[in-house]
Parts: sequence; C-alpha cells; structure tokens
Amino acid sequence: MNISDLIITEPNVIPTSSGSIMHLLKNTDAVFRGFGECYLSSIGMNDVRAWKLHNLMTCNLLVIKGLVKFVFVDNRMINTSQTVTDEIIIGPDNYKRITVPPGITFGFQGICDDNLIINIANICHNESEVSRFNIDSIKYNWN
Amino acid sequence: MNISDLIITEPNVIPTSSGSIMHLLKNTDAVFRGFGECYLSSIGMNDVRAWKLHNLMTCNLLVIKGLVKFVFVDNRMINTSQTVTDEIIIGPDNYKRITVPPGITFGFQGICDDNLIINIANICHNESEVSRFNIDSIKYNWN
Repeated sequence: MNISDLIITEPNVIPTSSGSIMHLLKNTDAVFRGFGECYLSSIGMNDVRAWKLHNLMTCNLLVIKGLVKFVFVDNRMINTSQTVTDEIIIGPDNYKRITVPPGITFGFQGICDDNLIINIANICHNESEVSRFNIDSIKYNWN
Repeated sequence: MNISDLIITEPNVIPTSSGSIMHLLKNTDAVFRGFGECYLSSIGMNDVRAWKLHNLMTCNLLVIKGLVKFVFVDNRMINTSQTVTDEIIIGPDNYKRITVPPGITFGFQGICDDNLIINIANICHNESEVSRFNIDSIKYNWN
C-alpha cells in the first residue's frame, strides 16, 4: 500500500464439511491493538459513506458478504503538501483484513447488492474522537 | 433460559440512511470476559454441528445472516442426574447475543439457505480445551 502503516493481512479460511470458518482477528495477531468493540455495518449497492477520520481508534475492517471499496487518504504530512492515497476492493472472495491506524481519513462504497463489513476496533465508539468531512471535501470520483 | 448462566442479551441495531449498524460486543458489556479471538462460521440449511463443549472458553454467539438453532445441554451437575437443556433460534430479525460460559455442551443447525454465525471468544481457539461428542451421544431430534 502507498500508506505505509495501513496494513493488509489475510486471515485464515478453514473449509469444513458443512460450511467454512473465516478468521477475523486474534489477540495474538501482530496487528492486534486491544479490543474495544466489534460491530457489523451493512451498505447497499453504490451507497457511499465518506469521509471519516478516527483520531484514537485503530480499525480492523473485514468484508464478509458482497464487495466493498475502501478509499484511504493520509494527510498527516499536510504541512509538506504530501497527500498519499490508497484504494482496495475486498470481500469473501478476496478475503483481507485492513488495519487502519488513527489519523487516516477513509470512505467506503458498496459494490454488490448486499454488503456486510465488520469492524473490530481497539476502543469503543466515542463520537469525540471522530472527525467527519463532507463527501465533497476530498476530491474522489465514486462513480 | 433454563440454564441460569446462559445469558441472552440484545445488542443495539442502529439504522442509517444507507444501511444499518449492528452491535456485536463491547468491552463495557456486562458479559465481556476478555478478547481472545473473533471468527465467522457459515452453515448450510439443515446442516448440524454437534456436540462441542468448551472447558475454558466463554463464547459470544451472534447470527448475522439467516437463522440458526442452538441447542444447549448443561450436565455440570451430572452426579445429581440433573440435565438442563435450552434451545433458541436467532438471526438478524430476532437479534440476540448468546453468551455461553465454559462447561455447557452445545450444537447448532442452519435453518435458512445461508447462515452466518459470529463467535467472539475470550480466549483463542485451543483444541485441548474442547471436548467433542458424537451427534448421537446426546438424544435430540434435529429433524
């Protein structure tokens, strides 16, 4: 990835005779930063949620149904005018975990009819640590 | 529930304009016993996985797609010949979290075409703390 501390890993998927087991996160994973909260988000086709920046939370994002595009913008070096971006599309058929450190702005878009995202976060949701920006505040063509 | 320390709770579901957010577990929830591992299991219609008993793990079970029937057998008081059982069917439309303490035997069955179960466990998977019993070892009519 262009953003050096945006970490993409591939949790194990274990087939069984009656379905599969998909690992999400273990406390022994190198990216584990503690457990605060785990929640599931659904997003419809073409719907966009952007932009959000966590000032304290480390997110572990996994897509367990459908396909979701994530777009990341790192302007932590804003005083040097360096903005670094990344985008990735993930889902069960391209099974990855994205670990997003605090300080990176991101948005996401549903690609399939039904899309389910899990976030395993190192702290509980606290609106005071979240910065939200209007979708037009960062130039990106979502179409 | 008949088994007194089998705890059923209802995590919050928050509708948004482009989907919903379903809480799974927070470290501030009364049932939280630490975080070891989080994984997703799929199970097909009518398929059964039974029976399993964790000697150390506390499981938090949630069904985020489909419907799954869970059957619990508590024979911790086996010397008094008291066996206590419970069964429950859960899914997104009957959204519950089942907290299963160590020592309770359980099995589960997929009811819909596609069923997805999340387990948020207080320790990592360790085969040495799991006891497995043949499906026929406990009388239950899965049909």
